[in-house]
Amino acid sequence: MKQNKRISSAVIRRLPRYRRYLIELKKKGVDKISSNELSNLIGYTPSQIRQDLNNFGGFGQQGYGYNVEGLLNEISAILGLDKQHTMVIVGSGKLGSAIANYTFGKVGFVIRGMFDNSKEKIGTTIGGFEVSDVEDLVAYIEDHDIDIGVICTQKEAAQEIADKMAFGGVKGIWNFAPIDLEVPDRIALENVHLSDSLHELAYHINHISKS
Amino acid sequence: MKQNKRISSAVIRRLPRYRRYLIELKKKGVDKISSNELSNLIGYTPSQIRQDLNNFGGFGQQGYGYNVEGLLNEISAILGLDKQHTMVIVGSGKLGSAIANYTFGKVGFVIRGMFDNSKEKIGTTIGGFEVSDVEDLVAYIEDHDIDIGVICTQKEAAQEIADKMAFGGVKGIWNFAPIDLEVPDRIALENVHLSDSLHELAYHINHISKS
Repeated sequence: MKQNKRISSAVIRRLPRYRRYLIELKKKGVDKISSNELSNLIGYTPSQIRQDLNNFGGFGQQGYGYNVEGLLNEISAILGLDKQHTMVIVGSGKLGSAIANYTFGKVGFVIRGMFDNSKEKIGTTIGGFEVSDVEDLVAYIEDHDIDIGVICTQKEAAQEIADKMAFGGVKGIWNFAPIDLEVPDRIALENVHLSDSLHELAYHINHISKS
Repeated sequence: MKQNKRISSAVIRRLPRYRRYLIELKKKGVDKISSNELSNLIGYTPSQIRQDLNNFGGFGQQGYGYNVEGLLNEISAILGLDKQHTMVIVGSGKLGSAIANYTFGKVGFVIRGMFDNSKEKIGTTIGGFEVSDVEDLVAYIEDHDIDIGVICTQKEAAQEIADKMAFGGVKGIWNFAPIDLEVPDRIALENVHLSDSLHELAYHINHISKS
């Protein structure tokens, strides 16, 4: 695995998808798969698949195909899923609690705490986590070596929370607030902008039905 | 507005973001904005902004800038947000209930019903909606002219639900299950693959910290 090679973000975006298909193949007991077979499943062209996977050294052998488990393990390692990432969630509303529920038990991720600023919520248990005061967020991140901060607050609070997370020392932020955050370069930022996704869907609905 | 021109999916993906910034500008009472000022806010280059917005005819005038409210209304109309889209949510777990809560009150969208296959949930009220039996989904979509089906089920159930939604006649599917669905061409499909997003974040965390 060539750690120092620059991988394009388009390739990185496809890796979790390869991984999902490889997990299904492994479950079905498939040992080896050719780029043509993988292409039929996943919908990318065989040459795109070969190009993508070549980025990470050679997993496959010409005329032999890819070793499903080997490729799965390599992609998991490239994504960093062979490590455990600790997380805190800020915002214990429905979305925060859904994300806590969703992430619980996922390989490579463990939720350590949940935070809110609402006096009614602090001290209660939501999704199995006692909700802490967001005033204690920075200290908690420092003391517990938290890797990922998840922002499930209203957009008005999101930048301030991101600043606190950065100050505490997270390595990455998973942002669900409908706002573009500013974070230092050393921090990875991944947005899930639900309204953008819904609006894109609306566009396609209105333009498919016109044609 | 040129309805028949093919707009690239990259441009369409940027429109909701333009819209978010224009809403903020309007709230602040800004009437006009140049592509340079918009560039400073949104982070795209001025020439990219001009190119993007030129796709939809001319909103701006050289040396004058864009009319914020006019541009906002046009982009909203292009996205189809001047219409009401009716929705049903299938899967009334934490994610389904978070999405119901999230979508409630959004301009252009109205949730009409929530469905589940769990006997314990059918008939209960979740997020203000009485949960109906998924067996009745197709008839409900037909009778109530539902535009969008939202899939918040486990991945194992998702394709069958998508088939029912398609059969019932939805125009679009908003899929949160971690699976790639097959739908007829006449149906728009938009995925929110949370695990792909989280895995991409993990990749960036592990590769930023190595450099």
